[in-house]
Amino acid sequence: MFSEETVAKIKKLATLIRYYILVSTTEAGSGHPTSSLSATELMASLLFGGIFRFDVDHPEHPNNDRLIFSKGHASPLFYALWAAAGKLTEAELMTYRKFGSPLEGHPTPTFPYAEAATGSLGQGLSIGVGIALNAKVLDQLPYRTYVLLGDSEMAEGSQWEALQIAAHYRLNNLIGILDVNRLGQRGETMYGWDLKAYEKRISSFGWKTIVLDGHSIPEILGAYETALRVRNKPVMLIARTIKGKGVSFVEDKNGWHGKALKKEEGDRALRELGEVDRSLRGKIALPQDLKPEEPVVQASLKRMDYPADQPVATRRAYGNALVRIFPKFPRVVSLDGEVSNSTYAEIFKEAHPDRFFEMYIAEQNMVGAALGLSSRGKIPFVSTFAAFFTRAFDQIRMSQYSDGNIKFVGSHAGVSIGEDGPSQMGLEDLAMFRTILNGVVLYPADAVSTERLVEEAAKHHGILYLRTTREATPILYKPEDDFRIGGSKVLRKDDGDRVTVVAAGVTLFEALGAYEELKKEGILIRVIDLYSIKPIDGQTLQEAARTTRAIITVEDHFAEGGLGEAVQSTLTSPAIPVHSLAVRKKPKSGKPKELLDYEEISRGAIVEKVKELIR
Amino acid sequence: MFSEETVAKIKKLATLIRYYILVSTTEAGSGHPTSSLSATELMASLLFGGIFRFDVDHPEHPNNDRLIFSKGHASPLFYALWAAAGKLTEAELMTYRKFGSPLEGHPTPTFPYAEAATGSLGQGLSIGVGIALNAKVLDQLPYRTYVLLGDSEMAEGSQWEALQIAAHYRLNNLIGILDVNRLGQRGETMYGWDLKAYEKRISSFGWKTIVLDGHSIPEILGAYETALRVRNKPVMLIARTIKGKGVSFVEDKNGWHGKALKKEEGDRALRELGEVDRSLRGKIALPQDLKPEEPVVQASLKRMDYPADQPVATRRAYGNALVRIFPKFPRVVSLDGEVSNSTYAEIFKEAHPDRFFEMYIAEQNMVGAALGLSSRGKIPFVSTFAAFFTRAFDQIRMSQYSDGNIKFVGSHAGVSIGEDGPSQMGLEDLAMFRTILNGVVLYPADAVSTERLVEEAAKHHGILYLRTTREATPILYKPEDDFRIGGSKVLRKDDGDRVTVVAAGVTLFEALGAYEELKKEGILIRVIDLYSIKPIDGQTLQEAARTTRAIITVEDHFAEGGLGEAVQSTLTSPAIPVHSLAVRKKPKSGKPKELLDYEEISRGAIVEKVKELIR
Repeated sequence: MFSEETVAKIKKLATLIRYYILVSTTEAGSGHPTSSLSATELMASLLFGGIFRFDVDHPEHPNNDRLIFSKGHASPLFYALWAAAGKLTEAELMTYRKFGSPLEGHPTPTFPYAEAATGSLGQGLSIGVGIALNAKVLDQLPYRTYVLLGDSEMAEGSQWEALQIAAHYRLNNLIGILDVNRLGQRGETMYGWDLKAYEKRISSFGWKTIVLDGHSIPEILGAYETALRVRNKPVMLIARTIKGKGVSFVEDKNGWHGKALKKEEGDRALRELGEVDRSLRGKIALPQDLKPEEPVVQASLKRMDYPADQPVATRRAYGNALVRIFPKFPRVVSLDGEVSNSTYAEIFKEAHPDRFFEMYIAEQNMVGAALGLSSRGKIPFVSTFAAFFTRAFDQIRMSQYSDGNIKFVGSHAGVSIGEDGPSQMGLEDLAMFRTILNGVVLYPADAVSTERLVEEAAKHHGILYLRTTREATPILYKPEDDFRIGGSKVLRKDDGDRVTVVAAGVTLFEALGAYEELKKEGILIRVIDLYSIKPIDGQTLQEAARTTRAIITVEDHFAEGGLGEAVQSTLTSPAIPVHSLAVRKKPKSGKPKELLDYEEISRGAIVEKVKELIR
Repeated sequence: MFSEETVAKIKKLATLIRYYILVSTTEAGSGHPTSSLSATELMASLLFGGIFRFDVDHPEHPNNDRLIFSKGHASPLFYALWAAAGKLTEAELMTYRKFGSPLEGHPTPTFPYAEAATGSLGQGLSIGVGIALNAKVLDQLPYRTYVLLGDSEMAEGSQWEALQIAAHYRLNNLIGILDVNRLGQRGETMYGWDLKAYEKRISSFGWKTIVLDGHSIPEILGAYETALRVRNKPVMLIARTIKGKGVSFVEDKNGWHGKALKKEEGDRALRELGEVDRSLRGKIALPQDLKPEEPVVQASLKRMDYPADQPVATRRAYGNALVRIFPKFPRVVSLDGEVSNSTYAEIFKEAHPDRFFEMYIAEQNMVGAALGLSSRGKIPFVSTFAAFFTRAFDQIRMSQYSDGNIKFVGSHAGVSIGEDGPSQMGLEDLAMFRTILNGVVLYPADAVSTERLVEEAAKHHGILYLRTTREATPILYKPEDDFRIGGSKVLRKDDGDRVTVVAAGVTLFEALGAYEELKKEGILIRVIDLYSIKPIDGQTLQEAARTTRAIITVEDHFAEGGLGEAVQSTLTSPAIPVHSLAVRKKPKSGKPKELLDYEEISRGAIVEKVKELIR
């Protein structure tokens, strides 16, 4: 049990932490002090009550427990905890929210103790799921993952995705702490202080729930101790708290969300805190010094085998590639959203079932979990239909601020998927992933280039998207051909080229078909396979712009933000016109060929455009 | 109770419907027959058991019950139902999935009985929430909304958002039918046939649950009757079904998801069906002939009042505008995601609390509900932070296929929100909304143009996005100035203009500041307020391209897919270079001005770029 001494010390540390929360936000003139104050005992007890096990001098220790603030706006509390642990000075805390400070308004991994960037609510539990899966299944280490959750953000469906899957995978090493302070941003949440409402729901999802007074240190410590003993399900502490606790004039009052205290109010609040021992520091228990097994890396890989006369779908080549490269990249894991027989992640699943995670039809959680896995050094390849990555755009967006290392693989690109119709067609995926800072966007056309780029993807660190095609396409390349992130291939070139056609994936074959038709009429075109849409091979495009009379871009994608606009942006001082063929009409069911013609991105449309331009 | 006659007739209709499902998918060579067969009794009983009340000759009747297939891939069943009701011939059914047929692979409103396009799973219940809110709160009509759900898609968090809010708003006029056929696309779902798992979870969310055998017509009819009597909570029928029911060799077998039967298999299946009365038709009960009150439309509006010397945040002008225009657009409703005191939807909420819907921190459901409301003739204005619309990109994407009429209003655009940091910054919203076919993307700079464009938005039919700014900005325009979708304003123009600067919102003021600085040095620039990013004023931009030496685009947004690329795309045959200033570095916390400088989108950066270009 807990000694009175421990409880007393945590109480004093809580006061110190409140002091830090108030002075840092008052100095910054902004921030969320009341949201931070409500969770102070919960977090102080966790870190300084011997529950949390973390080597503060080695935040990367593989057996550290992990702490995520899903309620990222409680960042003042987050930083205050680490200051109380002796890793931040008060002067550093006063740089909170200032330009250049690692103590940003919502945590980012610029601050070494932040596992990921949070602040867009409802995402932290999924990240926790990924880290817990890593501990339990991959690294097989006993560390635990703790996630601080707000009550308002429990309205986010993504939390319930995480709750479902954590129970399904029996992640007893995942512990959530729900800070039920009743008040959202503009008023009461749906359930207020009805803790039973949360308990009922969360336990129905298969979690062990513990309801408690979120300001009673003995109760909190007892709850954590109980949680540590649960064997077969994840655990949720459901804590009744008071928003603004510790500052009487803001306690449980609406209208104080996201408001820092002004100087006089701040002084008044500090007086209420009473005596603060500013030299006090808390110790965090160390983890057991355990490491995961180092994976064996094989230097050379099997050759790929694609006979030149047998078309293969690039989505199938993706599955093959993951298996083929795995010996060289043993940190690879595969996550899929209930469509592995369509994305062909199933090929990897069959070869390495221990490194494949079925994430069901819950893309938001899948992406969050991938971020968690990448934070623990794994290389997640995340697959579903290209269109369904739009379900997780917020999680994808946030992963860039976490320096995530995630490879997204979207199949069923474009109208060319045919009869299933628009709900299944990825037509905005290139645009979406292009917005990611330093993101990589690849769209290989054949099986060989797909395999090569999957390998490049595994080597690359960052957010990367690879688009695959549903139907089988001819083999264009040889295994020894060079493919690089930022590269392109000029497939047809002649001094007599009148016009350049730039395409990728589905439309590259249309371009090659157009080439043949035009050649019969004595018209030569350059054909470029722009398999790397971001970064883009500006040099090759600029050379084409100098030596041909026009550029036609062709994509099985909407006109905005995709291949066409990527090419245009590269040619800022174009000497020639750039014309974009893309999907501009509402797509519908139909045969692939009918749809390509209808959308005017087929070989026929390319031929027509070329002729129009050279008239 | 139900007569044996009724039960027998439904049984025969179910056989007919199975016949239709099999022949249409076998003919198409694709589709999801097994997913359709499992829900056949559930739907046949609903439509032809006197439960559903719908005037088949007047699908727009305001008091019709509404039916949504959240499991949109069961479209063969959907069409088969309406064929059994006499509104489709067998010949028409055989056009299923064919190019040009209204019977698409997943339903779209091209088919008059589809309330919305579905097919991206987990979205139908939210649409149902919107329609149910309309019935209960707005139209005050007794009609009910029925949503057919698949078990796999219950993994989607969006369903739990819908479940939460439907119970919170006591939508007893919303009835879900959960088709628990155990099998997902690539194997068993998380809970298989454990109906209690669903019952526990859904009832914990506050729904009345009824567990039943999904192939027993008397049980199904009894369940619907019970559902109709529930007063204060939504109802979920949880039905144990067999995937592929009725065709012995596919019943409950993995590997048959999304597979049509081949000709011989189809013939074999039809033989199993036995006698099919192909002339049989079912009657659907008529609704009570009730209509909502016609709202009074006021022709003229109050004048707006923005003194020229008082800066006002465009987000605040948004709230003011909604209130001011409402008398002329009484179909307007407002939905907000727990941030109405930040988006200023609260101004409308205070004036018209009966037309404001708090949707909590659950953006996916908010967008789905907006689609439901728009399908019932309302004009939903949906607001949250620009960044958080990325949470609902899949729902936004799908709304375009539903011909939705939704106005999205995203506040807190850009790095200029300051200290909160990147999680709260909308930097990809313009790109996201630009991908919407025929979407409108507006970014007014001042309060006056915001008000005018909110009015244009209300008049416009379609998907529209309006971006607002957090901080107060100066008044630029007069109330009588003209603002149109597709327009722009040339704010500074002179024959001596060397370079054109195109900006919007935040950066427009930076451009005007740059204008003043450059003018002092005798350098004139044209300044264009590109408040309509899509559609775009190509004419004004082309004129600038003809009469100045370069165009500089400046946006508080990432470089991809936004204002800069929109301008580039318009100038396909540019005679001059186009340079894009945009957010290209990872954003961080800081003061707005510091961040604009850091990202080189401030007045200083514009001045520098102009000078560089004219050197």
